[in-house]
This record gives sequence, C-alpha cells and structure tokens, in this order.
Amino acid sequence: MTRSAAELSLRERIGQINQRLKGWEAVEWVDGAPRVTDVLRREVDRWGGIGAIYGVLRADPWSQVRWSNGIPPERSAEAYEAVQEIVRTRGSGLPTLFVEEVPHGLMALGGTTLPVNLALGAGMDVDLVEALGARVAAEARARGTHVALVSGLDVLRDPRWGRAEECFSEDPALAALLVEATVRGMQGRATDGRIADDRVAVVAKHLAGQGAGIGGRNGSGAPIGRRELGEIHLRPAFVAARAGVAGFMAAYNDIDGVPCSANAELLTGVLREDWGWQGIVMADGTAVDRLRDSAPDPASAAALAVTAGVDLSLWDEAFTYVEEAVERGILDTALVTRAADRVLALKRRVGLLEEARPEHAVADPTGSPAAREFLELAHRAAAQSCVLVHDEGVLPLPASAVVAVIGPNADDLEAQLGDYTPPRPDDDPHSSTVRSALEARHGIGNIRYARGTSHRSRLPGDAAEQVDAALSGADAAVVVLGGTSRRSYDEEFADNGAVDGPAPDTTNGEGVDLSRLELPEAQLDLLRVARAAVPVVIAVLIDGRPRPIEPLVALADALIIAPFPGPVGGAAIVDVLGTGVGGGLLPATFPASDGVLPVAHDERRETARGYVDARHPVGRLLGSGAPAVSVRLCSVEATLTAEALREGGTVTLTADLVNDTDRTVSVPVPLYGRRHELGVRPRRRTLLAVERAHVAAGSTAVVQFTLGLDELGSWAGGRPVAAPVEVVAWTAQSHDPPPDALVVRITDQEGDTGWGH
Amino acid sequence: MTRSAAELSLRERIGQINQRLKGWEAVEWVDGAPRVTDVLRREVDRWGGIGAIYGVLRADPWSQVRWSNGIPPERSAEAYEAVQEIVRTRGSGLPTLFVEEVPHGLMALGGTTLPVNLALGAGMDVDLVEALGARVAAEARARGTHVALVSGLDVLRDPRWGRAEECFSEDPALAALLVEATVRGMQGRATDGRIADDRVAVVAKHLAGQGAGIGGRNGSGAPIGRRELGEIHLRPAFVAARAGVAGFMAAYNDIDGVPCSANAELLTGVLREDWGWQGIVMADGTAVDRLRDSAPDPASAAALAVTAGVDLSLWDEAFTYVEEAVERGILDTALVTRAADRVLALKRRVGLLEEARPEHAVADPTGSPAAREFLELAHRAAAQSCVLVHDEGVLPLPASAVVAVIGPNADDLEAQLGDYTPPRPDDDPHSSTVRSALEARHGIGNIRYARGTSHRSRLPGDAAEQVDAALSGADAAVVVLGGTSRRSYDEEFADNGAVDGPAPDTTNGEGVDLSRLELPEAQLDLLRVARAAVPVVIAVLIDGRPRPIEPLVALADALIIAPFPGPVGGAAIVDVLGTGVGGGLLPATFPASDGVLPVAHDERRETARGYVDARHPVGRLLGSGAPAVSVRLCSVEATLTAEALREGGTVTLTADLVNDTDRTVSVPVPLYGRRHELGVRPRRRTLLAVERAHVAAGSTAVVQFTLGLDELGSWAGGRPVAAPVEVVAWTAQSHDPPPDALVVRITDQEGDTGWGH
Repeated sequence: MTRSAAELSLRERIGQINQRLKGWEAVEWVDGAPRVTDVLRREVDRWGGIGAIYGVLRADPWSQVRWSNGIPPERSAEAYEAVQEIVRTRGSGLPTLFVEEVPHGLMALGGTTLPVNLALGAGMDVDLVEALGARVAAEARARGTHVALVSGLDVLRDPRWGRAEECFSEDPALAALLVEATVRGMQGRATDGRIADDRVAVVAKHLAGQGAGIGGRNGSGAPIGRRELGEIHLRPAFVAARAGVAGFMAAYNDIDGVPCSANAELLTGVLREDWGWQGIVMADGTAVDRLRDSAPDPASAAALAVTAGVDLSLWDEAFTYVEEAVERGILDTALVTRAADRVLALKRRVGLLEEARPEHAVADPTGSPAAREFLELAHRAAAQSCVLVHDEGVLPLPASAVVAVIGPNADDLEAQLGDYTPPRPDDDPHSSTVRSALEARHGIGNIRYARGTSHRSRLPGDAAEQVDAALSGADAAVVVLGGTSRRSYDEEFADNGAVDGPAPDTTNGEGVDLSRLELPEAQLDLLRVARAAVPVVIAVLIDGRPRPIEPLVALADALIIAPFPGPVGGAAIVDVLGTGVGGGLLPATFPASDGVLPVAHDERRETARGYVDARHPVGRLLGSGAPAVSVRLCSVEATLTAEALREGGTVTLTADLVNDTDRTVSVPVPLYGRRHELGVRPRRRTLLAVERAHVAAGSTAVVQFTLGLDELGSWAGGRPVAAPVEVVAWTAQSHDPPPDALVVRITDQEGDTGWGH
Repeated sequence: MTRSAAELSLRERIGQINQRLKGWEAVEWVDGAPRVTDVLRREVDRWGGIGAIYGVLRADPWSQVRWSNGIPPERSAEAYEAVQEIVRTRGSGLPTLFVEEVPHGLMALGGTTLPVNLALGAGMDVDLVEALGARVAAEARARGTHVALVSGLDVLRDPRWGRAEECFSEDPALAALLVEATVRGMQGRATDGRIADDRVAVVAKHLAGQGAGIGGRNGSGAPIGRRELGEIHLRPAFVAARAGVAGFMAAYNDIDGVPCSANAELLTGVLREDWGWQGIVMADGTAVDRLRDSAPDPASAAALAVTAGVDLSLWDEAFTYVEEAVERGILDTALVTRAADRVLALKRRVGLLEEARPEHAVADPTGSPAAREFLELAHRAAAQSCVLVHDEGVLPLPASAVVAVIGPNADDLEAQLGDYTPPRPDDDPHSSTVRSALEARHGIGNIRYARGTSHRSRLPGDAAEQVDAALSGADAAVVVLGGTSRRSYDEEFADNGAVDGPAPDTTNGEGVDLSRLELPEAQLDLLRVARAAVPVVIAVLIDGRPRPIEPLVALADALIIAPFPGPVGGAAIVDVLGTGVGGGLLPATFPASDGVLPVAHDERRETARGYVDARHPVGRLLGSGAPAVSVRLCSVEATLTAEALREGGTVTLTADLVNDTDRTVSVPVPLYGRRHELGVRPRRRTLLAVERAHVAAGSTAVVQFTLGLDELGSWAGGRPVAAPVEVVAWTAQSHDPPPDALVVRITDQEGDTGWGH
C-alpha cells in the first residue's frame, strides 16, 4: 500500500488533494441498491484516484435527497463500499476518505439529531459534550464515515449572522472547552494519533474569524487585529489542535484583507510553525474558486491556496488547475506533495491504509440499549440547554392546568432542529414539540393549540380566531415564539448549499442573516392577546440566535429560552415548566434592541456611555438565567509565578453552592474574570471557567475551579502564554466585579504582577 | 530665552508638558477687563510655568461662557496677554501656548462658523478647503491663538457615532485630501517649519481609528488589524504628517486592545520611526486619566503615556504624577525631557521663543473686505455641500411659488451649525435658515412656516394644526428634517465636555450616539401630511450623519441633503431649490435601513449576499447625487513601473464632461477604483481621486486625474508603497466597474503586475 505521495505521479497527487464530487452525484440509490455514476468513474479515471468524497450520505433540500430516494441508514456501508470499489480498482488503488457533515449529529437519513451547538453552549457541560461526541462518532463510523465536518470554532460575535446557532458561545473560553470536548469525544483520546474504529476524524470548522464578519453578514470580511484574533477567534482552534484534531476547514472570510484560504500566516505560520500541529487543512466549499477576486485565474488561485497551506479542496474547480500552476512555475511541486502526504496521513490515522481493514460495525438498530442511551443523552443535552430567564413565581405549572399552547414554534418539530439537519423520519416516537409534550403531561383534553402566526408574516384566514378559541377558558398560555432554520425542498441554494432564495419561511442558518432581530409584531401580538385572555402567560423562545427579549419579559410571567434543542426539545422545555428549574444559562449576550449590535460581555472597558436612545446596549449578559442555587466564592487570594503557571501549575478556587429548593438541581456555575495587564485596556468581563454542579435538594455542595495556563495566560498571540498579571475573579452574574471578588496574582520571580502598588 | 528643556528643572519640564487648566478657569472677563484667577497663579507657581493653556476663548454650554460673560472677540488678545503676563513673570519665564478648538471655525465668541467637515466632504473641493483654512487661521491668530485643535483624521465608518459630522468622509482618500488641504491652509506652506504670523499650528485629531469604534459607540474599542488601520485610518494622518502638521491628538479608543495614549507602536513607531515626523503628540481631554484601566495608578498611567510618546496632556491629573513616576523608577527622565523639548519646539515654530514677538494683528472687523471675502467662501462651502439626491423634475422651484416650509430644521439656525460651535451673536445679518432664505427669495407673503415637530419627539399643542394651516393653499412644501448637535446650557456634560445627560433635544455630536438612524415617525409624518396636501413636496435633510433615506425618497418629489452647512446654510439650500443643481455629492454611504450597519462603499468583496430581510444594505453609495454633467472617462490604458511610481511618476487619466444644462455648474468628479493584488481580497470600490470641475452652460470641459503614489500605492502599512498591482478605474456612479472601465498597471521591471494572464 502506498505510504508516501512521492510514490504517486503528479496527476495522482492532485487527485488526492481533490474533493470535487458531491457524494449524492457519485452514488445513487436505485431499486434497492447503490448505483455508482459515470460522474464518479470519470473523476476517478481523470485523476487516478480521489482523495476524499463529500456527502455520500448527505440528505437535505440542497442535495434533494429524501427518505424516498436516499440511501437507507442501515445500508449506508453498502453505498460507501460501492464507491470505494470504483476508487480502489480504477486508479492508484488508494481508498478514498468518506467525509460527512456532522455539526450536531450525522446529517444523513436516520442520523441522530442533537441540539445545536448554541444549545450545548447553554448547557456548559463538558463531560456531556464529550459523551455525545463519542456517540455521534460511533454512529457515523458504523456506517462507514471516516471524516466528520464539525462546527464549533466560530465564535458568536454578531447575532445577525444566520450561523449563530453553529457557535457554542460568544465567549472563546466556553467555545474552547466545548470544542475540546467534542474533539475528544469524536476522535477518542488515543495519544498515538490513531483514530479508533468506533470514532471518526474531525475536521473542525471554520478557521478563523468568521464570527467577526462585518454586520454579521455571512462570509464578509473580518478586519480584526492580531490580539482580537488570538483572544477571541483562535482560542477554540488552539485547543482543538492540542487535542489532536485531524483537520481544520479554512473559512470563507478574509482576516484583515487576506482570505483564509490564501492565508499562509494562519494556515502555516500559526497552525504548523507556532502550534506544531499536524493534520490537514480543508477548504470550505468552493472557497478556492472564490479566490477569484484575489488571483487572476484559477491556476493562480489554486497556487495561492496550496502554497498557503490548503491541503484538500471542497467542490472547487480551481484545484483541477494545479497541474497548470505547476507547469507555469507558480506552484512548487513539493507543496503539492506536501498536501497529498497530509491527505495520506489522515487516511492512515483512520486505518484506511491498513491491508486488513476492519469490517464496519452494523449500525445500532433503533431501540437497542446503545441507541436508547444515546437518546437519553440527547434528552439530557436538550434539558440542559433550556434557560429559565425569568419567572415571576408562576412555575412550576401544575400538571392539572388547562393550557393554551400557541405560537409558530409550539408544534413545529422542524423548527426545533437547526440548520444542517437531515429530514426526519415520518414516524419518530421519541420526538416532541412543546404541544405534544404538554399533551403528554397534562392530558390531551387539557391542551388547546393554535399556531397563530408564521415566523415572518401573519397567517391568512382565521388564525386569530383559532388563537382566541385556544385561549378561551385556559388557566395558562404557553406562547412559543422564535425562529427556524427550516430548509425547503423548493428553496434556491447557492453553490455551497447556503440558502440563496427569498426564504420566506425561514429566519436562521447559513445564508439567512437578519438585519432586524426584534421579534415580528405578529409574534408579539400573540403574547399580547394571551396576556389579555388568561391569568398566566409563559413565553418560550426557540431560536438559534440571541434576540432582544425585553418585550417578552414585559409581557410574560415567565420566559424560557431554548436554543434549537433538537427533536426531543418539546419534552425538555415542558420539564422546565414542570419543575421551575432551567438547565442552562445564556451562552451569549442578548442585545437590548436592534441597532446596538454588536454587543458582548467581554468588550473592552471604554469611556463611552451607551447610545443616547439606548443607554444600556446589553439586554441580558452571557450567563444570565434564574439561578437554582446560590453561589458564594470562598474568599482567598491566590498567587502563582508565571514560571510555575507555564510549567503546569494551577490555582484552585472554591465556591459553596446552596440549593434551597426541594429538588436536586444540575446547574452550570460560571467563574468570571477581568485581567489587569499593564498597557492593555481590559475586557470588562471574561469567562474564566465553568463547572457543572449537581446539588441535592435542600443541600450544599462545593465546586472547584482549577485555573491553569488556559485560564490565566494571555491568548493575545493565539495560544496561552504565562506572564505577570492580576486577574479579578467572581461568580456573581454581574458585569463588573462585586466588592468581594477575589484576586489571583501571577507574578514574576520578584513577586511583581506588573500591577502592584 | 530657553532653547532646550535640559536647561529647566525636572519640575519645570513637567510644567511644560502639562495642559491642565481650562482657559475659562484661568481668566475671566469682569467689568470690561480680563481678570486672571488664583487657579492660574497657583498652577504657574506649582510648576514654574505652563506648557499650554486650553480654551481661554472657548465659549459654549460646557464652559458656560456666553456673550453675556465671555471675552469680547475684539479684546481676545488682551485676555491672552493677561494670562501670558502671569506665566512669563512667575516661573521659568517661558511663555505658554494658547490652544483653542477650531474644528469648523474658531470656537470662540464671534468666531466664524463654517460648515462641518462632513459638509466639506460633500463639496470635495481641495482648493476651497485650503482657502478656508487660511482664513480660519488668520482669524484665530489675529486674536492670539497659537494652536488649533482640528478634527479631520477620523474616518466615518459607522454613522451611529455622534461625531460623524467631524469626519470628512467614510473614504480615507477623500479625508486625506481634505486634511492635507486644511493643514496647508491653516499652517501655510512654509517649508522651514516656521508658522507664519497669520497662521496657526494645527493639532490634528484624532489618532487613530476612532471612527472604527464598535457599534459607533464613542470611544469604544477598535479591534482592527494593521491593514485596516493603515488603509483606512492612518492615511489622513500620514498626509497631515507629510504636510508638516504641528501635532496629533491621541484618541480615546484602544486599537486592538492598546489605548492610543499608551500606544508606543503608534505614537513612536509609526509617527516618528516610520514616518520621520517631528511634532508634538497631545493627549485627548483626560485621556491619560482614563488609562486607569490599563495601569494600576496615576503615576503608572503617566509613565505609560509619556513613554509611548504623549508629549502634552489635556486636563489630566495623571501628568501631575510624572515626578513620582520618575522617582519610582518607572519613567525615564530623558523621556520627560524629550516631551518638553517637543513642546518648546512648537513654541519656536509659532515664534513664541523669539525675543521680539510680533504684535497680534487686530481682528478684521465684521464688514471689512477680508471678512466679506471669508463670508463669501463660507457661503460657497455651504453651497457645495448641498447634495441633490433625487429630483423627479420639480426643480427649479419658481420664485413665484407659494411655499409651505415646515419641519424641525426649517427655521432652526442652531440646528445647522454642528457640535463644537460657539453661541451665535444675537444679531447676525448674514445667517439664514431655509425659511428665511425662502422669504428672501419668494417674498415673506409667499412663505408659510410651521415647525411641526421637534427632532426627537412630537410637539405638544396645536403643532399639527399649524402644519395644516401652512400647507393650505401652498403650491409646494419644503419639508426640512434631520438632526441637531445643539448643546443646551442646562445640559449635563462629562469631564471632557461631551454631552452626558439625557439630551432630549439633540441627536448628534460628541456623546450623542444613536442606535436608530431612521428618522422618527413624527418627522416622516410631516412629509406624509405634505404629500396629501400639496402637489409638490421637496424634502431637505439637514443632519450630521448618514441616515436611511428611502422613506424620504418615496414620499418626496425631490430630496436635498445638507450636512450641517453652517449659519449661511439656509441660503445655500434655497440656491439648490432655485437652480435644480446640487453642489456636492454624498461624502459617505447612506445605509438602506437600521440594522445593516456598518456599511461602506469600500468594504471588501465578499461571498455574502445581504440580509434576508435587507438584501441591499447600501441605500445610497458615497458619491451619489443627481449629476449636473455627464462624465466619460477617455479609454486609454496606462502602465507605470513600481520604481517609477516610487520616484514620483504619475499616470494621467482624462475625462470629458458635458454640461447640457443652461447654467454653469461646479461639480465634483470622483474617480473610483478597485485594486487587484495577489492574495488580497479587494475592496469593492475605493475613491482614487476627485477633481472639482466648472463647466459652462451647454459646454464641455476636460478634467484630468493625476495618479501618483498616493493614489496607486498600497496603504496597508499606513504610508503609500509602490508595488506591482492592477487598478481598475471608472467614473460612473456604480459599485462595480462598468464594462468600459480603464486599467492602470503598475508593473515590476519585467512588466508584470502580479495579476497578468
């Protein structure tokens, strides 16, 4: 078996770094069996092989793959094998990598769909995210997938961006913790680089700064500086690299003018030279073709990308010009070989180059103990993602209550799922909407439902009358509002699968950026009508991005926010209604209103006051949520030398938790901080660490925060560096440190923090 | 006379770099004569002298100086002399510098108030701006002012910022051209550094990046990269430095985390080492005190600032700790001496250290030929600033028409003036509002006025009835809307003079950032009422920032935009009504709506489409305006080597102008461009150059654009550098190059642009 790209012809090497084919164009499912296409054969023959094939299993409106025409889940391995057979027998003999989208579960028919990343960000549960990653990976690998494309590096800096839901948080520390957990879960923790047969290789996306796009517009430039890049956007990537992530996907955007796919400083300087990371860099879909603005022709674009450090293309035409680029002398053959070797190395990591390849496991049938366990984890993740923002004492809602459940997200399963989601099976006994979960809890006879309005426009006909009817005689109204990343099979799509049409029925996801985030009046009107009709009004916001929520707080007695919680989200939300305890905290700052964006809890302190017409741009800070326990940080001061920190030293802070309620609760406990560093304007507040704690009813518990180099070092350069500094730490949900905040001092050998008096 | 700071004691050197006193606290006008205060005496005695005194003549609500208690204009020199006498006789004997605000005319009682910078940006007239600068300088110097604080470096990147009016443009090339003209005008063009006795030294503000503050919030951080900083924000500063500007004021904001006042890379690395500039850096008001977040105590803050390169404080307490900083060993005495020497050098430049000091000229009395000429220039500037955005054929408006003139800015002189404006004299025969100018043109009997609404809220009482009455029987309505930077003597102010209270009656200026720029419904309602009542409706928008204007275009037959045009603005606007020809073009991009900010004509090309609910974020591009002439760029291609460009070579492009109207017009002719540079995502469109042309009625003219290093070099590093590149150039008002755009090639010695095919 080939071990080195040098053994291949130039043409074959180019084949290894190409990932042009869309899998659903390479193999189809016809008459109960896989049928490979001439497109695949031509591609294999043209290059003497193919490095990777994307999306053989992808099913969604863009691919036009559905249950009626797609590959049945339990026969995925057959489809893959049919492709592999062609690749193995017609070219260099090197098997191809099978690459799939796995942003919150495998994006294939029957793939288990989890809450979106933003929901996991609300849960702040590192252990759970790792466990979920392991289950997702096992599910994908059992079908034959080698490489998973996984969101998580993007940091949510402007909620207008439709892809906000793919971010874990606006805070880089939280994003980094959950990215690391995802990589460990999906790839396993093996230290030899080998990815076990029940795991998949992860290509983490996107690198870097995509969340900093101007105005939240998808793929727009990020004219940010090195410190902003390092502190905010590179941190999740660094921890992924450290955890051994197999690959990074270069982002569409430019950073300060240089497109990521042409950014040698980023892809080679930072990743390889500074971090010492080894792995592959994949282009985003058609991103090398999109270098057309930055290069005079496709061959130059390909040369730029390969030279910068892009090892594997995605759908691009430009990489077919690599040979021309070499012939024209604008691309060094050695760089093509370098890229091809990295692709081969990835094949080796997943065991593809071993003579005896493992049999793929048979996918767990639904209902198996493992599948049930996965479902249980998914439900826990959904429950932890629900944030009880506000409760004026109306929760828990008695199970005997007659409830009107109204709103566009009250009974819309698809709206709970998020973007990059496969079509649901017709029959799914485990899924729930708020309506169906209320019916299960209160009895069908006690639940009255009306949709009331669509997401973006009023419904025609008698929608208002239906709402009135539902409210009539109800004890309480649960008004379920928000957005949706629904994709329609009738929609228009760009060449990379992003929505490109008017998308009248969707509000979130890739290609669906919004300029106005305040909920439409038609949605707020439902709250107003409910307020006038019934004594108790509970608002639920199911959405994939922060929005201004003050009108909801003003109109409702309680507010639950659930970032797209997935198919079991209804039950998770109704659990909160039934317990009065939320499982998560806001994973990002919610703006007070439109017009104030961007806002973040970690903007630097400034001399500015707010807008004269919006004095407090922050509506709700990251970390907001009705606390189920009280937290008191034990007041000690801590000191460590920078040298000790550099060599693995840590400081441990302890907090006492008191649970005065009559039920056991599971809550995230964030530790906030502010760094005082000479000559730098401090961020007003950052997240230093977060621990999830379980506290028994009427009981107390202790949580420990272990602060090391990640938490106390400077990330200005993109990886943590120990230097003298003073860090103020606190647990209170305040934007500024309270009077009893602690101080952690990192000193030089003389005991000086640079901030001494 | 002392020539070197080394001859002074440390205490005296510290005195030279202090500018703590506010002038109106140093000298008062009592019983018809200047009276110096004990505050001044104590300050002089404390330091053995004072480097500079700010604002002896300042008159405005913050200083609480008015016509009734301020220094009479013609006796300004006496007041200055009274202060100088104290300084000269009680300390080291070194005279002090008198520093005043001169952002658009001298901010003193009787100072001539010009249109704001944004208005001059619309006029795009380099020669006029230089001429105005010379007149302003002469007026100030005649009173005894040495140093003028002059806005112009800030680049308008987010119109929510209240200080947008102080920017010339969103485009750095336009800002640079007008800054350069301002410096040349105000300081003169003497090459020996000496500033003539009819000119003043200019401290240009602010350095740097203040226009990039997050969300347009005043003084917020600018987390931008080096290329964005260089291309957009440093360009105006570089040309000012090259023109020999006496000083720069360091900005409040941080750049990528480092406050400008503590930014050695900027204040020393860029200014001194890279640019070779010599001059003084002044802190912004209390900016060193505001380093409290970035340093543990005032002495450390002072040490940071002096070390970084701040030479002269403004109102700060921190600089009184310089001696302590030296004693503690955190500040090198040599750096204090360096700063003091720079202050002395500035005194030398303005002739203060000469034994025989010139007598101050007596200020031109109102009505003198020079004063009349100044007034004429101010009127021309106002006329050139009016942009006719839209005309459906209703202009010119016949002078016989009966006109209803309504709206909050129809007859509000103060609202035309902008921020940093002294109180108007009670009797000012040369000023005009739209109402008064219409009365002059149409006859008082033909003009009916109603205010209709205030700027931010509806008026109580019978405002609506008054509007109806004004409209009744009118042939046309001129509806004058917009904002105001009015300051009230009852307002609250921050310690730097920015508005700090609720400011219910103001919408613009320092400390008045707005989150919503769409005009209030109460203002739009006036247009709606007019639309229903009279056959012709003309909208006029007098404001200091871009706003969404589509509702105005939709409701009115014509729209004129006048950035705060100054006291003669009314007449200038009515000139446009009477001719149907606007004098300027939009100096910045107007957003399509709220929620899409920021937008600029020179954002980099991106893969993004617009928001799903706002597909075209740009409402009107920079350069928009109803064209009075047609322009055709003569189609030649041009080539120059980078070496030739570096050594002063130029390329000349020629455009033919055709004036089909029956009047001579004066118009700006912008030349747009796009740079194609390998590996860089191009800005969609930049302004390469602009020439103002005069074309006789029914005639043609030729305009030449001379493109040299400034226009064709790369500004990525903050000063222009010649390198191979391909630049596409065009004159059409389009966002992308039209098919007949020209190509300018800058090549290497082999004739290669890096963009060849």
